[in-house]
Amino acid sequence: MDSWRTAIVEATEGSIRVRGYDVTALMGRATFTDTIFLLHRGQLPTVHERALLDAILVGVADHGAGAPSCATARLAASGNRQSLSAAVAAGVLAIGDEHGGAGSACMELIAAVVDRARTESVSIQESARRVAADARAAGRRIPGLGHRTHAVDPRTAVLFGMAREHGMAGDGVASMEALDAALRESGKALPINIDGALAAVLFDLGFPPAFGKLVFIIGRVAGLSAEVAEEHAREKPMRIKIPVTYDGEPARGLD
Amino acid sequence: MDSWRTAIVEATEGSIRVRGYDVTALMGRATFTDTIFLLHRGQLPTVHERALLDAILVGVADHGAGAPSCATARLAASGNRQSLSAAVAAGVLAIGDEHGGAGSACMELIAAVVDRARTESVSIQESARRVAADARAAGRRIPGLGHRTHAVDPRTAVLFGMAREHGMAGDGVASMEALDAALRESGKALPINIDGALAAVLFDLGFPPAFGKLVFIIGRVAGLSAEVAEEHAREKPMRIKIPVTYDGEPARGLD
Amino acid sequence: MDSWRTAIVEATEGSIRVRGYDVTALMGRATFTDTIFLLHRGQLPTVHERALLDAILVGVADHGAGAPSCATARLAASGNRQSLSAAVAAGVLAIGDEHGGAGSACMELIAAVVDRARTESVSIQESARRVAADARAAGRRIPGLGHRTHAVDPRTAVLFGMAREHGMAGDGVASMEALDAALRESGKALPINIDGALAAVLFDLGFPPAFGKLVFIIGRVAGLSAEVAEEHAREKPMRIKIPVTYDGEPARGLD
Amino acid sequence: MDSWRTAIVEATEGSIRVRGYDVTALMGRATFTDTIFLLHRGQLPTVHERALLDAILVGVADHGAGAPSCATARLAASGNRQSLSAAVAAGVLAIGDEHGGAGSACMELIAAVVDRARTESVSIQESARRVAADARAAGRRIPGLGHRTHAVDPRTAVLFGMAREHGMAGDGVASMEALDAALRESGKALPINIDGALAAVLFDLGFPPAFGKLVFIIGRVAGLSAEVAEEHAREKPMRIKIPVTYDGEPARGLD
Repeated sequence: MDSWRTAIVEATEGSIRVRGYDVTALMGRATFTDTIFLLHRGQLPTVHERALLDAILVGVADHGAGAPSCATARLAASGNRQSLSAAVAAGVLAIGDEHGGAGSACMELIAAVVDRARTESVSIQESARRVAADARAAGRRIPGLGHRTHAVDPRTAVLFGMAREHGMAGDGVASMEALDAALRESGKALPINIDGALAAVLFDLGFPPAFGKLVFIIGRVAGLSAEVAEEHAREKPMRIKIPVTYDGEPARGLD
Repeated sequence: MDSWRTAIVEATEGSIRVRGYDVTALMGRATFTDTIFLLHRGQLPTVHERALLDAILVGVADHGAGAPSCATARLAASGNRQSLSAAVAAGVLAIGDEHGGAGSACMELIAAVVDRARTESVSIQESARRVAADARAAGRRIPGLGHRTHAVDPRTAVLFGMAREHGMAGDGVASMEALDAALRESGKALPINIDGALAAVLFDLGFPPAFGKLVFIIGRVAGLSAEVAEEHAREKPMRIKIPVTYDGEPARGLD
Repeated sequence: MDSWRTAIVEATEGSIRVRGYDVTALMGRATFTDTIFLLHRGQLPTVHERALLDAILVGVADHGAGAPSCATARLAASGNRQSLSAAVAAGVLAIGDEHGGAGSACMELIAAVVDRARTESVSIQESARRVAADARAAGRRIPGLGHRTHAVDPRTAVLFGMAREHGMAGDGVASMEALDAALRESGKALPINIDGALAAVLFDLGFPPAFGKLVFIIGRVAGLSAEVAEEHAREKPMRIKIPVTYDGEPARGLD
Repeated sequence: MDSWRTAIVEATEGSIRVRGYDVTALMGRATFTDTIFLLHRGQLPTVHERALLDAILVGVADHGAGAPSCATARLAASGNRQSLSAAVAAGVLAIGDEHGGAGSACMELIAAVVDRARTESVSIQESARRVAADARAAGRRIPGLGHRTHAVDPRTAVLFGMAREHGMAGDGVASMEALDAALRESGKALPINIDGALAAVLFDLGFPPAFGKLVFIIGRVAGLSAEVAEEHAREKPMRIKIPVTYDGEPARGLD
């Protein structure tokens, strides 16, 4: 079998190096958030980058037992108590474009807005208007806008405020706000949700689109682990009953 | 359907509270590690608690592409590129008592050592000797000792050193070191590995045994996400070929 | 890397052999159930063995959208539409000792009953009485008895009837019925559920205990795949709302 | 919480109906393959439909320990022995468009060929030529052609032969063969693999495209369960070592 190449970790007898740094040196001097940044970017973050990544991870860590990922983890924990990792993994599997993962599509859209502004020599605002109009014409939803629980997602303003305070708000935040404004002009106001907000900030921090989904997974696993621990500690197995209505074929016999 | 009760997160229109704290307040002022502590313990950590939890999460975040969890995630990523969460979840599923999860069993053993010291009115050292002798007599391995890659796990000394510097080393660290000494006395020296080291420190921080496995999952998902991102970015799908030797029934025909 | 040895499948250029049989020969002449038997036992089943394995797989294939495994798959499908395998896998993860997997523990208990009858030179009935008394004394539940939906599981009588018709009912069925009778004598009547019934029959067919859980997984994946397909075809993403009651720390501020 | 509607299974006290049929009636009279057909189609198959579905499930059940799904399941089983379902689920997660799941895309392509033949009033052969030319012009690969192990997939001829014998070969098989011929004309010969073959037959049986991936998952879980059982029975935990070459940042210190 061919050896697998990697630029992330070098583990040899008595030594583990993460992106070149000895893990024992990191252990006393880098935070977990620093290490997440390092793993994905190859370098340690500045204080500004760390503050924003921390805020994003904290913002997505948990949204209550009824969030699809948390509810999935609890259901799995209810039937299978032999493996904590099985329940956490089940929760992770509920994360997709529809739940928690819109950040990736949103980062791609932001890239399209920034790109179009440059190639068509217009402002971010005008580019966002054109991109939004195209999406509307094609019947595509703009990812990162709207939330099933919150009319206004309280995390968005905090994240954008922090991005500005730390001097890190750039084309990403501008594009997302411009898309939001373009939709409001067209009478289709939907507030920027956490996926849209973190996409804008991660774009400005230089992350690739895939990280828009991965950051949600990393943050949410903190919450999933707590949801599963609580399910085991407080609840009996098999306690969950989902009401079901059958509307299929009536009873019939085999001839 | 009955409502699900929870003491972790309260999510209502326009508000998300984690253990009573508004998530928007946490976003600017708590680190991700603080939030992990908060989710599992119901209160924010002291600077000492945070430093040790950070060190543990950094220490377990990644151990190279060939670690079972990382290799599992990469294999899944190689066949299924539609879902980043599927690949990360696959990696989580490789975490169990045999890989990354020995911390839980180790915390239970530490609790047994501490308990026996009290009930039999002996020192931690003597209790550990008795517990180790019982394990030896019953043919049970002591979890948290030995590592397939490292003769001496470099992370252990760092973690125990930090626990002492922060004034947080208590019965947990003492018990683990006593178990290690008891084995060495009996000529079966196996160094304390990261599972044993984090178990000792988490015991002294007051975490329940289940967290010994959950902390590994939380930390390792940071690494898994980077391994999967690198697999997608650098490698072609289906690139991995495992050499297989067949030693079963010879070719035979259906009559 | 060392080659992986296996006695299951030999795949070479232009040829795939399952337990020695060419897969192309099996394709026209063996059923899927035959192949499941072959994969796990190394030989093709008799008509009697096939009939019973078919009945078990049919019996566990689906128990409605609200069964923990099915509900978990649907929840995952609701948040992540990029990967059918992610949703099916989430459903599989809900299968454990508490849901669908009791067959394994039950097969071990049956083995203990049969073993004790032999070593203590008593009847299966007396052995079952002793095993049940020990379990009661130790406060252990007997796996395979009782069901949260069915006062009497309709599948048990059918499976035991088929085992008798096919001349395959042996010590396994006798032990399970004896355990049931022993509990009834002690006033703790709980009917034999599908896990107990399939455990008894699989024991008589010569399967190892692990298959008691694996057969449920194989059968249920048929149902999970249909549940996920229906969720995608009939429902909108993120439609599922779980009612949650928060009973944790009251709202509090960071100082 | 709203009740979940479903047309698949009605489970009430003492009764389970699958698509209207009492499961106890099915248990003695329907095979597992019948039930898979019933779950997905709402009716029991004819002998011809059953024979072809059996052949497909048998054909994909296992492709050796080194197939991505099987290897993923074994790796997970190597680190986590607490949960058989965790290891099987990990294997399922490796199934995607790149491994085992191309049948779905292939069924969509076949539908496009059939549709274009009708709308452009040309033969299936001419339509396939146009669809293949468009794919080539757009740089898209045709799914269902080529295999990393087999120059000629031995399962394809068997499946197409059976479809003809059973009188079930229609536009699906014709389209797939026409796509294959079109590629051969253009000098890009790649034989039809099992994904392409099952896609053609499932199209002719009236299944929707999603089933092209689901049938692979259902069949492969039979193999995954045997691979996991063998891994537990024959191998030690943590036995698998993947050779890794590090080519990232050189060792560096924190300043």
